[in-house]
Amino acid sequence: MSVTSAQGFEAAGIAIGLKSSGGKDLALVVNRGPRHSSAAVFTSNRAKANPILWSQQVIADGTVSAIVLNSGGANCFTGPQGFQATHATAEAVATELGVSAGDVLVCSTGLIGEQLDTGKLLPGVATAAAALSADGGADAAEAILTTDSHPKTAVIERDGWTIGGMAKGAGMLAPGLATMLVVLTTDASLASDQLDRALRAATRVSFDRLDSDGCMSTNDQVSLLASGVSGIEPNADVFAEALREICLDLARQLQGDAEGAAHDITIEVVGAVSEEDAVEVGRSVARNNLFKAAVFGNDPNWGRVLAAIGTTSAPFDPYAVDVSMNGIRVCHAGAPDQSRDLVDLTGRAVHVLIDLHEGQRAATILTNDLTHDYVHENSAYSS
Amino acid sequence: MSVTSAQGFEAAGIAIGLKSSGGKDLALVVNRGPRHSSAAVFTSNRAKANPILWSQQVIADGTVSAIVLNSGGANCFTGPQGFQATHATAEAVATELGVSAGDVLVCSTGLIGEQLDTGKLLPGVATAAAALSADGGADAAEAILTTDSHPKTAVIERDGWTIGGMAKGAGMLAPGLATMLVVLTTDASLASDQLDRALRAATRVSFDRLDSDGCMSTNDQVSLLASGVSGIEPNADVFAEALREICLDLARQLQGDAEGAAHDITIEVVGAVSEEDAVEVGRSVARNNLFKAAVFGNDPNWGRVLAAIGTTSAPFDPYAVDVSMNGIRVCHAGAPDQSRDLVDLTGRAVHVLIDLHEGQRAATILTNDLTHDYVHENSAYSS
Repeated sequence: MSVTSAQGFEAAGIAIGLKSSGGKDLALVVNRGPRHSSAAVFTSNRAKANPILWSQQVIADGTVSAIVLNSGGANCFTGPQGFQATHATAEAVATELGVSAGDVLVCSTGLIGEQLDTGKLLPGVATAAAALSADGGADAAEAILTTDSHPKTAVIERDGWTIGGMAKGAGMLAPGLATMLVVLTTDASLASDQLDRALRAATRVSFDRLDSDGCMSTNDQVSLLASGVSGIEPNADVFAEALREICLDLARQLQGDAEGAAHDITIEVVGAVSEEDAVEVGRSVARNNLFKAAVFGNDPNWGRVLAAIGTTSAPFDPYAVDVSMNGIRVCHAGAPDQSRDLVDLTGRAVHVLIDLHEGQRAATILTNDLTHDYVHENSAYSS
Repeated sequence: MSVTSAQGFEAAGIAIGLKSSGGKDLALVVNRGPRHSSAAVFTSNRAKANPILWSQQVIADGTVSAIVLNSGGANCFTGPQGFQATHATAEAVATELGVSAGDVLVCSTGLIGEQLDTGKLLPGVATAAAALSADGGADAAEAILTTDSHPKTAVIERDGWTIGGMAKGAGMLAPGLATMLVVLTTDASLASDQLDRALRAATRVSFDRLDSDGCMSTNDQVSLLASGVSGIEPNADVFAEALREICLDLARQLQGDAEGAAHDITIEVVGAVSEEDAVEVGRSVARNNLFKAAVFGNDPNWGRVLAAIGTTSAPFDPYAVDVSMNGIRVCHAGAPDQSRDLVDLTGRAVHVLIDLHEGQRAATILTNDLTHDYVHENSAYSS
């Protein structure tokens, strides 16, 4: 049910011919209220797509009535014509729903540098509005996919209130704030500033810790809409915890479906002086192509882990570092420990534990291996 | 002839069984003087191999009598036993040549985290010393190779003096100062501080601009030894220019033999506010796996170039950027320009020209594409 699991929301997902596959490519999510408090985080890529530039204005007042999302084109680096396409889309949604265009978020995903076909998009908005339904969450989750192999949805229910969500993302998966399209809805009764705090806290330790291929997208957006239908205002910590949980769930789903990946790699860095150091160390390993290729080959090549750590600015002593892979400590105090032959990497899940022995802080980065399928998917056709 | 092209140098390259292939794996280069002025630059990776830790001490006084280099093992993250192996190797060279161990540079390359077999290495030094010859440059250039498909050598002759060099490097090719093993020799008569200035200036715009796979090695070293045999002290600018030329030649050879690469990509960034900005922009594109995979697929996917630029801190306006690929301007002022179908990427050489239109500075980064062969070479066995 995804974005329609919480009360007060309707959604639709339809095919309007933007995708050459003919699959669903336009999603609409509407908050029927009574509240319309909202929050959103956006890619930190300085090359921002037109829908990002638009949506940053929309979210400024914390009020959102609807989100329209298309796959089949990123509408990024498309000039003034591209921005007009985004604006026109929001206006079309506003007209259909009787709301202000300034309360309509827009998301696009697909190839950069191609104009969207507004001749299909604008009539499509009317069709999507007519298809809105309290059961439309699954269709919407399908319509936002690009190279994803399946929809990603999640639902968390608490005492009288619910958070639901959908996500898409398989390539260009590296944090910039958000790194994909995600829509979260809740019927909890919260103000936009409360949502904003919870959303930033949750994305910081979920989507921002997902770094599948080191490539930051131009179009990423995570939105959270609250309808207030439940009439319940949850404790801030309880809500934040639930939101973090659903964001981590969706982040894991994105990791599990990353383009061409054969392994889901969890890089846990402990013993760091600061959390920022731990993140930097984890990310350096996550972005090391040699390490990623070794994991694809089921090779516990821990030297590549240490070579990556050495490129960071995090405090560490190369002769104090421990590295374990899937439970086998292969490096102790910067020297060989247990035999690498004991490490079994044949499963999909790989756990790398790095202990810097410098402090008390930790962070976990999620990544994937570098595979032939990744190269194939990103070289055989434009995406 | 490589390192023995300049007068005053002898070299040898022999097989001592460190490489499982049975190929040559120990090189020795000796400066017979009269001068022994020298300079060296080392990886900036904070995880430094034992030979780097040793050689940094050796170069401190600017005097080097010999360099011993082994392939078949990086001697990195091997603990105190590993450092002792490096020290013992230098002592063995010193004993054979009648010089001080403190004037013997050591280089190692191969798998990280495995101990070197000193039972083979130390007797091997004696064998290599016995094989020293003024014609030994080619053997030495062969003995330092790992996954390289062929030796890389270069020679530049000027008025009465010569610079020769050899290089190895095919993976973990990203700058950290040096990113590979390089030995340069000259019979020009220069002091070590003159060599140091010229070497730093040359590596900064050659090896430091080579970023094949974004992975910085733990073992890289570029050394320059001067014998003074010619008796000629070249003009500093003339020598610096010759040194830059031979470094660029060797860097291009490394790029052309990068692991699994199918394209040599030159990323030229112009119109930057500073050279540092231009380097950052070029490097962000060079390290973008999606862009690199697209080039492998002969796909001029310029959106991935812009998405990479957006991750930098360099001043630029996304709506002012121009991008050309192999002479076709596919993006003008941040919007589509000429058709991407006009771009021919079927050849090995790819030229990406990025004009930021912000200033007058420029830099060129050399990189490679991301291919199935790269994944294969770095996953199918440990290296």
